[in-house]
Amino acid sequence: MATQTKPILHGYFRSSCSWRVRIAFALKGVEYDQLPVNLIKDGGQQLTEEYKALNPMQQVPAVEIDGITLSQSLAVIQYIDETRPGPRLLPADPKARAQVRMISDLIASGIQPLQNLYVIQKIGAEKMQWSQHFIDRGFQALEPILKQTAGKYCVGDEISMADICLVPQVYNAERFKVDVGKYPTIKRLNEALLEIEAFQVSHPSRQPDTPDDLRA
Amino acid sequence: MATQTKPILHGYFRSSCSWRVRIAFALKGVEYDQLPVNLIKDGGQQLTEEYKALNPMQQVPAVEIDGITLSQSLAVIQYIDETRPGPRLLPADPKARAQVRMISDLIASGIQPLQNLYVIQKIGAEKMQWSQHFIDRGFQALEPILKQTAGKYCVGDEISMADICLVPQVYNAERFKVDVGKYPTIKRLNEALLEIEAFQVSHPSRQPDTPDDLRA
Repeated sequence: MATQTKPILHGYFRSSCSWRVRIAFALKGVEYDQLPVNLIKDGGQQLTEEYKALNPMQQVPAVEIDGITLSQSLAVIQYIDETRPGPRLLPADPKARAQVRMISDLIASGIQPLQNLYVIQKIGAEKMQWSQHFIDRGFQALEPILKQTAGKYCVGDEISMADICLVPQVYNAERFKVDVGKYPTIKRLNEALLEIEAFQVSHPSRQPDTPDDLRA
Repeated sequence: MATQTKPILHGYFRSSCSWRVRIAFALKGVEYDQLPVNLIKDGGQQLTEEYKALNPMQQVPAVEIDGITLSQSLAVIQYIDETRPGPRLLPADPKARAQVRMISDLIASGIQPLQNLYVIQKIGAEKMQWSQHFIDRGFQALEPILKQTAGKYCVGDEISMADICLVPQVYNAERFKVDVGKYPTIKRLNEALLEIEAFQVSHPSRQPDTPDDLRA
């Protein structure tokens, strides 16, 4: 597919959903530009009318690509997978694809939404316990599923969208002081994936908008 | 694809995620068996060890199909789409597919998880206001997106996974007394979709486990 211009990622260094998209671009070897949206500064730059036109949910990421604007990270990742050459992000076999999507959605619908900024702002003072509770609840379900599906990575021995979802969720878990050591399969997979360059270059500690004190 | 046995849907009549899967089966003309899981009775039948083996997230739906067990409704729907004949549930064009997934994920990750039973049980007495707040927030974003993508249905003139997500979410909105009339595109699409047989036969008011007083 001919692409005239580089995709633009509107994201935030620490957003786990932005990180997912960065990993997908890196795995596919797609060059892109980043336009950081600071979720904290000025009361939240995602709340401006200008940004709302890109993503009415007032969340990151939003991606301008091939003349359209997409939000929702898994929709973006699957669009990248279906239109760009390079390694598949979903396996060819329908059952394995379904397992990849099941694991991805368990994280993207079952865990992450409950730590979204606009949710924990509403929770207020108890946000740490709230987040820990739902991450632990999700990881308790994810661990036995991964025990069945994983090889070297989440589903078999090929990197997939499931891995793209796992690593940023573990990063979030650590931010909220969840003891990831309780989940040996999750821990092992996360460590293996963090050895891979696409997961390293996309890491929150290495982005254009990473503050100096959090920079690797 | 040869299938020896009918798929089994473990679901609950009023669960919006179970309804999504029922719509997909109905649109594809796939016969399946239902094994109801009562989320209220006996403290919640989804919490048993037996059910936990089917879906460690202790949620409905879980689907036994082609020798595997899947949870997460969008993973199930896309597996059904990729392995069964009948009308496509995702369009052939990659950009339209991405829009279908964006709308589906906006609902499945951005709205529905915040009304999940295990979440609102934790919220307690304020669950009505909490649910209204997040449904309104999501519909305020969904309305301008659908204004751009919709034809007769959510994306163009073909029924897709986006429609499968929309109708059960509107049903939830009505349960939580959200004024859907504020969202004219959502309202119009929902009304058009409820005319279609696959959305009618799968409706919460017509399931094997629908209580008599809620039966249509």
